[in-house]
Amino acid sequence: VKTTAVSGALIGKDGYRHYMLKEIYEQPQVIGDTLNAYINPVNNYIALPDFPFDVAKATKLTIVACGTAYYAGFVAKYWFETLARIPVEVDIASEFRYREAPLPEGGVAIFISQSGETLDTLEALRYCKRQGQKILSIVNSPESTIARESDAVLYTMAGPEIGVASTKAFTTQLTTLACLAVTVGRARGAIGPERMQEIAHALREVPALAASVLAHDERLKELAQELADSRDVLYLGRGAMYPLALEGALKLKEISYIHAEGYAAGELKHGPIALIDDSVPVIVLVPSDNLFEKVVSNVQEVCARSGKVLLLADKKGIAKLGDTVRWSVELPTCDPLVAPLLYAIPVQLLAYHTAVLKGTDVDQPRNLAKSVTVE
Amino acid sequence: VKTTAVSGALIGKDGYRHYMLKEIYEQPQVIGDTLNAYINPVNNYIALPDFPFDVAKATKLTIVACGTAYYAGFVAKYWFETLARIPVEVDIASEFRYREAPLPEGGVAIFISQSGETLDTLEALRYCKRQGQKILSIVNSPESTIARESDAVLYTMAGPEIGVASTKAFTTQLTTLACLAVTVGRARGAIGPERMQEIAHALREVPALAASVLAHDERLKELAQELADSRDVLYLGRGAMYPLALEGALKLKEISYIHAEGYAAGELKHGPIALIDDSVPVIVLVPSDNLFEKVVSNVQEVCARSGKVLLLADKKGIAKLGDTVRWSVELPTCDPLVAPLLYAIPVQLLAYHTAVLKGTDVDQPRNLAKSVTVE
Repeated sequence: VKTTAVSGALIGKDGYRHYMLKEIYEQPQVIGDTLNAYINPVNNYIALPDFPFDVAKATKLTIVACGTAYYAGFVAKYWFETLARIPVEVDIASEFRYREAPLPEGGVAIFISQSGETLDTLEALRYCKRQGQKILSIVNSPESTIARESDAVLYTMAGPEIGVASTKAFTTQLTTLACLAVTVGRARGAIGPERMQEIAHALREVPALAASVLAHDERLKELAQELADSRDVLYLGRGAMYPLALEGALKLKEISYIHAEGYAAGELKHGPIALIDDSVPVIVLVPSDNLFEKVVSNVQEVCARSGKVLLLADKKGIAKLGDTVRWSVELPTCDPLVAPLLYAIPVQLLAYHTAVLKGTDVDQPRNLAKSVTVE
Repeated sequence: VKTTAVSGALIGKDGYRHYMLKEIYEQPQVIGDTLNAYINPVNNYIALPDFPFDVAKATKLTIVACGTAYYAGFVAKYWFETLARIPVEVDIASEFRYREAPLPEGGVAIFISQSGETLDTLEALRYCKRQGQKILSIVNSPESTIARESDAVLYTMAGPEIGVASTKAFTTQLTTLACLAVTVGRARGAIGPERMQEIAHALREVPALAASVLAHDERLKELAQELADSRDVLYLGRGAMYPLALEGALKLKEISYIHAEGYAAGELKHGPIALIDDSVPVIVLVPSDNLFEKVVSNVQEVCARSGKVLLLADKKGIAKLGDTVRWSVELPTCDPLVAPLLYAIPVQLLAYHTAVLKGTDVDQPRNLAKSVTVE
């Protein structure tokens, strides 16, 4: 932790008020850097470094991490299953390491950690190693224990992240995992060369699209006014947007101390809809994907119960729901596969501006440390 | 829903103020009835009905449900992995049915639903059937669609449940799943005959222990005063107590409209600890199991940050933490395996009394239906 603080001081805020804001704004750049490491710009082929084992032959993937990195892994579960048709288990490290999970022969275990020093994640890695799993880690710090103890490592090119609330580490983890899922899907023949090219193309567009999302900063700052007075917030999504809803809620908790909770939109009717009234803003993530109509009907249910909905959606979603909801922000239309990378940005900016309005210590929120190296 | 209301009127509240309270109090009886159906009282052997397939030979179990039934399945994941060493995936039905999960040959899929009519669960069942999985369901209503479409059915002996917030259906689902996990564990040789007898014995003690937990009703009613004034509550647990924390939070949400959230205690430091101050009660579930020391240290962290902790623990936990926390309730010492059945009861009573104090419609909370037969 001390090292980070020192390098943070050296790095500087570059004119931004907080490291967190600077790091949010660096995302088009660092997502681009990560893509440059893994996509060949000439033929648009995704090419990962050689591993000493073949991920494509894995009988199962076990993804383990904590906090925001866990949500990146949770998004990746949807990608690996859809693109590569590999069964994936994803778990919180502090749960996984104690439950003695039975792991199959030929399995690959993936660990995600910005610092590469998260203790629970490291102990989960050691358990998987003892169980004969091949170990692949996705870290931001090359000189880390998790990197050292892995059979193979993919680095995220986020650069130093100083703000305690993870932002650019998260989106570069997603970028790296997307490249991995596509490569594995292609190697297994679960997707054809056209689909691979299509996704590579969609990924290469992310930096420019991310920059266009950042252009909504002023609007998101206005909307943060509405959140800052709330004690409670719900975040809803389906599919790969469900982990994004969890991440959005975590960001608000961490730095604004608002009790935000992420929920799978389809579970609304099994309980949380009872919470809905006009005092709890409900933020809903609605890209144009195969679950679009389902989420639309969830939004309509919330609105029918006087819920105040903040809609993050593309042109299609705004056309459908713009008049029904209280507030909306239009995000670019994109391949559903890359939507989590883009939807992460407004989620971060909403938390950031809300925290600034509330006057909290954005880069060093109470009770939290940047890297959790104790149990 | 209409049928239920009619039979509810016929059934009556038996002198209780609400169906929910009556159903909470019926638990020693209906857990006993469920055990009688599955444990031979003479030799203490757990004997399930014959299935047309062998669960013990399953390559993987996929457990799918919604709401409270999902949390029962989530507890069972820990049991199946520990006792039977079978890999288990558990998912929310509204997520599972759309993500086209790759399922292995020789897999068994388990569906849990009180009504047997939950639409998302039924559609998940049909997906698994098309994918060649054997279908086992755990339902409370024999004449239900889910029961009819399954290859095998285990009934919970809860009797009609009228209160919208599920209570006795949950604990009888847990009872049934525990019997199944033990049987499968024994058949696979993952546990020996002594451990099986030991668990059967521990299960047979649950009705009497559950009755002794109900004796804390007055104390729980007093503590509900503390919750009723709160806008937000955190519920924490580890291992099989993590799903119980989620269920406790769901109960409070459903009927008291308090924003309660369940969290894996080990994830505290990755975000939610920032929420802790003296306005948010933190309810922690701490049985004497292999995670005891870890949860103790989480409780100490919360207390060190002025968190108001309500401790649900046995003698050992009270001895260790009774002086540190604000409030505590002593539950019986028991085999860790059956702890979820007993800890469910104070969780239900806290939600019930809080809702009564707040004057909500306990049996028919706003926006919720008993059985969710639409998407």
